[in-house]
Amino acid sequence: MNGLLVALCQDGGKHLYEQIYGYIKEEIRKGRLRFGERLPSTRSLSEFLQVSRSTVELAYGQLLSEGYIEARPYRGYFVCQVEELFDLADWGTAVKSGAPFRETGRESGAADGERNAGERRKEPGETAGSPYVCDFSPDGIDMTVFPYATWKKITKDILVDANSEMFSSGSPKGDYALRETIARYLHSSRGVNCRPEQVIIGAGNDYILMLLEKILGRHVEVAMENPTYRKAYRIFESFAYPISAVEMDGFGMSVEGLRKTAAKVAYVMPSHQYPMGVVMPIGRRMELLKWAGEQEGRYVIEDDYDSEFRFKGKPIPSLQASDRLGKVIYTGTFSKSIAPAIRIGYMVLPLPLLRVYEERCRIYSTTVSRIDQRILNEFIAGGHFERHLNRMRKVYREKHDLMVNGCRGMGRNFALSGENAGLHLLLRDKRGRSEKLLVERAVKAGVRVYGLSEFCMDGVAPKQEGGTVVLGYAALDKGQIRTGLELLEKVWA
Amino acid sequence: MNGLLVALCQDGGKHLYEQIYGYIKEEIRKGRLRFGERLPSTRSLSEFLQVSRSTVELAYGQLLSEGYIEARPYRGYFVCQVEELFDLADWGTAVKSGAPFRETGRESGAADGERNAGERRKEPGETAGSPYVCDFSPDGIDMTVFPYATWKKITKDILVDANSEMFSSGSPKGDYALRETIARYLHSSRGVNCRPEQVIIGAGNDYILMLLEKILGRHVEVAMENPTYRKAYRIFESFAYPISAVEMDGFGMSVEGLRKTAAKVAYVMPSHQYPMGVVMPIGRRMELLKWAGEQEGRYVIEDDYDSEFRFKGKPIPSLQASDRLGKVIYTGTFSKSIAPAIRIGYMVLPLPLLRVYEERCRIYSTTVSRIDQRILNEFIAGGHFERHLNRMRKVYREKHDLMVNGCRGMGRNFALSGENAGLHLLLRDKRGRSEKLLVERAVKAGVRVYGLSEFCMDGVAPKQEGGTVVLGYAALDKGQIRTGLELLEKVWA
Repeated sequence: MNGLLVALCQDGGKHLYEQIYGYIKEEIRKGRLRFGERLPSTRSLSEFLQVSRSTVELAYGQLLSEGYIEARPYRGYFVCQVEELFDLADWGTAVKSGAPFRETGRESGAADGERNAGERRKEPGETAGSPYVCDFSPDGIDMTVFPYATWKKITKDILVDANSEMFSSGSPKGDYALRETIARYLHSSRGVNCRPEQVIIGAGNDYILMLLEKILGRHVEVAMENPTYRKAYRIFESFAYPISAVEMDGFGMSVEGLRKTAAKVAYVMPSHQYPMGVVMPIGRRMELLKWAGEQEGRYVIEDDYDSEFRFKGKPIPSLQASDRLGKVIYTGTFSKSIAPAIRIGYMVLPLPLLRVYEERCRIYSTTVSRIDQRILNEFIAGGHFERHLNRMRKVYREKHDLMVNGCRGMGRNFALSGENAGLHLLLRDKRGRSEKLLVERAVKAGVRVYGLSEFCMDGVAPKQEGGTVVLGYAALDKGQIRTGLELLEKVWA
Repeated sequence: MNGLLVALCQDGGKHLYEQIYGYIKEEIRKGRLRFGERLPSTRSLSEFLQVSRSTVELAYGQLLSEGYIEARPYRGYFVCQVEELFDLADWGTAVKSGAPFRETGRESGAADGERNAGERRKEPGETAGSPYVCDFSPDGIDMTVFPYATWKKITKDILVDANSEMFSSGSPKGDYALRETIARYLHSSRGVNCRPEQVIIGAGNDYILMLLEKILGRHVEVAMENPTYRKAYRIFESFAYPISAVEMDGFGMSVEGLRKTAAKVAYVMPSHQYPMGVVMPIGRRMELLKWAGEQEGRYVIEDDYDSEFRFKGKPIPSLQASDRLGKVIYTGTFSKSIAPAIRIGYMVLPLPLLRVYEERCRIYSTTVSRIDQRILNEFIAGGHFERHLNRMRKVYREKHDLMVNGCRGMGRNFALSGENAGLHLLLRDKRGRSEKLLVERAVKAGVRVYGLSEFCMDGVAPKQEGGTVVLGYAALDKGQIRTGLELLEKVWA
């Protein structure tokens, strides 16, 4: 690690932990640190580098999250096997090049709304409030801190210049200015490599998938993890796409399992699997990209729905950032990061599919109002989005900490997971009680929690000892969280 | 016609011409005036009723437009054959029941934007102005009189009450309040019979068709007139729907021709065929509905894209108004009547298809921002839409008259058609010169006109003596229209 010391001395402009992380990652990528090799302990490295131990821990934590190293209990940190290493230089550049959200250390990318157990729970037209004292819905976001005043001001300013140009129909892909802004944002915050030409704006995630159907064609076999985002599952089903459920381990979709299917397209959420919260490590990512690269027509849909809200370490780069073969279709929306009501989502098409889009889909007019596109563009380009995200992260982190601490009180009986990112977490009953029992007891106490089976393709949760429930907290206030957890602790005691 | 005199005396609340029209229509519908029977001449009827002759002419004109009667040169007016008479009572009620636009006498319904020769002529992202001195594009609308101030004020007022409810995701079909408003508007202005539950709001006509694909299913053979709205043609093509071109006569799609195809769905524009401007008379409408009623699974898509802008007589009722069997899918947008940029369209589903929608499509989130839905709802419900339409009708009527008078100057050499409604008209060269020659000569003079072949499925105009060109005028100012027509007269002399 002498090289690291030299590097640290030279590269003063970065957070220390980032430099350590970057150095070790490079060493692994270049093969100078090999599979199975043991890293120095955090204590010895911190002493050697004369930095605090927590700095080294932060760096190791990030390497762990991204799958470069693994921790073996009582033995220390070891280099993981990384299937194949593509050149990640661009992502490195992106992080360096003044990424707007860099300072927080928890920055991230695109989001999606309407994640919910199964699909929409509300009937059309229904807007009645929840009948529960506390509804731990993984759906919903906190709109109380939405910058209404800013939004109004931007809207007003834009309408002041209102002209006929703005009220005319625009490009089918969306306004170039907004696509440019989104491309820049995704590059700096998520490492996504794309030109604005590759960005297609559409009215929400569902519409984006409908467009994708037109691009991919019919009878495309799709592989999905199980449990998964059931709404996407239902939408693929509505396309009459054959769907294969692929088993999932602690690293996400099993590529071995994927190979047993005839799937052409794998649908994954590498930054934060929904609902399991798994972060796909670099090794698995490379395996997945390798799978896609082996046959023409294979693609990976990366649904990057809530990666803005990561509460530990640096953001996980997008899978698209590692894609050199044009195999990743990157999708995201502003539903979770701004508001579900604005109905703006996007996808980034790899070049081969962009050509198909140009051929088949330019006929479809844009589905997003031009005025709304302008407002959003100004909201992002004017720095309001960044400020909003930072505020939201703070709000969500407080709720998150409250949740984690509250759940720790139940720690004897429940295993907590998926808590490092996103806006929900999972509790598994260590005493083997069923999901059904947990949900029913909670409902009796006026608390709605969501059984894992509600996220499963066939409505049956994967076999495991003890039921698992999903608890979302974004839309709850702190009082509700406290009350809800207290009630749960009581009825689940 | 003694009954008419009695009726006139009793029913003082209506325009005289409307009473005459209504009375004769009833007589025909009830079979008291039979097929082939001759009506009194306008002069004798006006003398008999002691009303001005122009009042009777107006009434006869409306009956002509709707296909109840026909004019035979030098012989007078005769009752047409009406295939089958459904009960139109509801439409009558709608017209009576204080329709908000009744007073103008030219009121009408839903509109669509982006009608253009072929499809979009602009490349994505391209916003450069036209290279022509005058571009008679049938696309585009006049945005100079758009009530920006009102729109801004509504937006501002709505954002003042901005709350989290409004920023949450709404019903997949669209907000109930807006669907109610649209249902009411369509009923009063277009005679459309529907409950708000049948109205589905979506981001523009193309998206509505994409939803319709999900409802109708795959490999649905569609029949279209030729020439037609080529964008819809291209969209059906993108669904891989087999498309049959059905010949058209002066009454619209030939139902005899339709019967020769295997089509399940007929796509028509009964109020104003695009681009030919033909109004489908009541007899043909009944034939079409009869065709649909003969087999389960047959439907008629009524694209009611620009019926707001009719310059003679009362509005033509929608085909949906005559549908008693649940066979008509009514579609429209606000692109032409408000602005293409707002991206709000809708369809009214007949009950059998509504059930299919509920089954298959509730999964798709709405594509229209809730804020925009509120703004539009307030714009219509607050009476601003009515005022705007009336203003637009005045503006378009002036341009229309300028066009018609200007074209009459070329009357010796050109036959004018399609001029009673909509925002374009057609000129056919009586001297047999080709479309190509006309377009090329115009372009040389810096004037863009659109050959009829650009609207044809195979790009070949139907055989007729002399080429036909389409001239739109909505987006042009009066000076441009004058200049353009002068130039055309010169180069086409």
